[in-house]
Amino acid sequence: MKSAEQLDLEDALAPLRKSYDLPDDQCYLDGNSLGALSHAVKASIQEVVHREWGETLIGGWNSHGWLELPMRVGDKLGALLGASPGETLCCDNLSINLFKGLAAALELQAPRTKIVTEASHFPTDNYIAQGMAQLLGPERCEVVAVPQEDLGTTDLREVAVVSLAHVDFRTGACRDIAGITARAHDAGALVLWDLAHSAGVINPALKDNDVDMAVGCTYKFLNGGPGAPGFLYVAERLHTAANPLPGWMGHADLFAFESSYRPAPGIRRFLTGTQSVISMAAVEAALTVFEDVSIEALRAKSLALSDYFLTLLHEQPDTQELLCLTPREHSKRGSQISLRMPMGYPISQALIARGIIVDFREPDIVRFGFSPLYNTFAEVRAAVAELADILRTECYREARYQHRLTVT
Amino acid sequence: MKSAEQLDLEDALAPLRKSYDLPDDQCYLDGNSLGALSHAVKASIQEVVHREWGETLIGGWNSHGWLELPMRVGDKLGALLGASPGETLCCDNLSINLFKGLAAALELQAPRTKIVTEASHFPTDNYIAQGMAQLLGPERCEVVAVPQEDLGTTDLREVAVVSLAHVDFRTGACRDIAGITARAHDAGALVLWDLAHSAGVINPALKDNDVDMAVGCTYKFLNGGPGAPGFLYVAERLHTAANPLPGWMGHADLFAFESSYRPAPGIRRFLTGTQSVISMAAVEAALTVFEDVSIEALRAKSLALSDYFLTLLHEQPDTQELLCLTPREHSKRGSQISLRMPMGYPISQALIARGIIVDFREPDIVRFGFSPLYNTFAEVRAAVAELADILRTECYREARYQHRLTVT
Repeated sequence: MKSAEQLDLEDALAPLRKSYDLPDDQCYLDGNSLGALSHAVKASIQEVVHREWGETLIGGWNSHGWLELPMRVGDKLGALLGASPGETLCCDNLSINLFKGLAAALELQAPRTKIVTEASHFPTDNYIAQGMAQLLGPERCEVVAVPQEDLGTTDLREVAVVSLAHVDFRTGACRDIAGITARAHDAGALVLWDLAHSAGVINPALKDNDVDMAVGCTYKFLNGGPGAPGFLYVAERLHTAANPLPGWMGHADLFAFESSYRPAPGIRRFLTGTQSVISMAAVEAALTVFEDVSIEALRAKSLALSDYFLTLLHEQPDTQELLCLTPREHSKRGSQISLRMPMGYPISQALIARGIIVDFREPDIVRFGFSPLYNTFAEVRAAVAELADILRTECYREARYQHRLTVT
Repeated sequence: MKSAEQLDLEDALAPLRKSYDLPDDQCYLDGNSLGALSHAVKASIQEVVHREWGETLIGGWNSHGWLELPMRVGDKLGALLGASPGETLCCDNLSINLFKGLAAALELQAPRTKIVTEASHFPTDNYIAQGMAQLLGPERCEVVAVPQEDLGTTDLREVAVVSLAHVDFRTGACRDIAGITARAHDAGALVLWDLAHSAGVINPALKDNDVDMAVGCTYKFLNGGPGAPGFLYVAERLHTAANPLPGWMGHADLFAFESSYRPAPGIRRFLTGTQSVISMAAVEAALTVFEDVSIEALRAKSLALSDYFLTLLHEQPDTQELLCLTPREHSKRGSQISLRMPMGYPISQALIARGIIVDFREPDIVRFGFSPLYNTFAEVRAAVAELADILRTECYREARYQHRLTVT
């Protein structure tokens, strides 16, 4: 096997790391939770705050194109997702966008009332669906949470919309968008994909896969900043649906201040009220780094990083018997590796104390995220070495043997 | 009458202007639309982006208190609104917060279904109410838009909630929160006040007036930046209501990642998903300027500025016959003066070209906003002088006489 140094030398994306401000004393493997700060974003925020807001004040809405930011940044996001122009908005947060998408799906699919989700879906997705059901009542909306293993066999013939995550936040498993979407469509159901953990590292090919709707956030692999705005994709053919949160920014003539709502044509109808200019501009700047690389190259590097991680785990006597929740098959793997281990929480803290920044999810999962724009093979090697060293210490020793032979 | 110079010299709040970055060549009288950039906000954004995000990355959620920002900034906003701690959140935008408030009101008031608004209410407020009615259907929600002059006599005995603006965005008229709230309560209705055009310049005394709910934005007199987040106030006694947009940030134990929603105690139950850290931190920094001044002192200066404006208009032969939509009575006046004039649009553009930054609202309204934290009496004088000069030019001359004797 090649050394980490050799792999980094041969990595065509390696120069992109210089676009980011990363702490010298850390291996930051948590870009699946909060992405890193780029120099482009720093410069953009300074420009938007000092020059645009500070100097042009109210004039910025027109002179700096603030009014068009949700659509302009949306289209740049859409380009990474395989959407056509005019199908994606950068706005609100994922939860709000999901509510808009589910309401639109229920309207389009009436009299169907069922939302199918996964029982282990990211909580906010299920909470929003539950909130929708509570608001609309059982005659208008019913949430069916299916165990993951039953998804392939659940009867979808009376289902309005299937609401799933592209990449599972716990396990890092990547779902078959093409297959599940086709199966839903065959049964007359729509699909709404949550791309939070895949946007920027995997191309969901929304148009080619005929996806109806999608939502996501921009603060993970897209590096938009803590709590950066979400996005909403709605296929053009569905732009007839109503927005349940029709704020003035989605009106056909927003400065006419009409007393009744008339939706704007196209994707703009799904806007709510005024959006944060600074936050959207930060996302736009964060996306400039993606202009120098294809999403396919990012996906290839992401898989190479996680392959290398798994290989090193397997080579190390201290780590080779850990339980890996993430599928080994490339097509089924996102951009993180989730290891399940007793004492996962103290082990994750020990890793962080040694500068290997990972995160922990209940009940016993340690997540290692690989951001192909800035992570290196040397960082992967360091992470495995530190994990092995921790597992060699007496107090964590038993964690090694709890789950055997599962990194295959 | 004292000169503008004398009034500025005697103004105890005058030193606060130095807290802001204002263009040298402008009289910025549009703080009712977008407030100015303070040095505190500039410093805070740099700190949050470079130090907090850039250096601590994911650790910032705990080490920098990002998770508590909606509540912490909410309480600081609440202090300006006469709310008790734990009743206000900084989150989402005004439209989304209004949707949450209206849904909560309808739930609490069932079987009442009526939302009373004003026909001339700010559009997004009426659109959101209309969207609620469309989503829930006529059995669950009905919007009754009442002409302003009928508000005092409309029968509220079957009304769930009265949703009004504290200060009207077109006319600058300030409503009697105490009286209208008491009248609604007498009829068993709740009130939801939109404070967008009053927060930061008028104390709505939410607790003393027994207000049920309120919403607002932070980008006008609060100077939070373009598209800065909104706020939601819900009186503590109503914290039993459901949030129709129950994102994971409002869960009782958000890192347990439970599959079912359990609302957090208190105001946190009204959170949706992840909020922009940079935007909320900017609002928090913007509020530091308010620590050095009472809201009563701000109100007094705001009225002094608009009084001076009206007096100068009345003294000038070229402006004394303009139609003023804003009530002269202090208790009925917000922090803007709205003049209605034929050719209002080109006149507003002519003012802007001369550095007097005002704005225009359909069909013929020119708005002059007075931000007591940074506007000066000299700016007021300059605005009237330029307006008079514009009205003396041939093409605008007739505008002067269209509406007579209305500045009284």
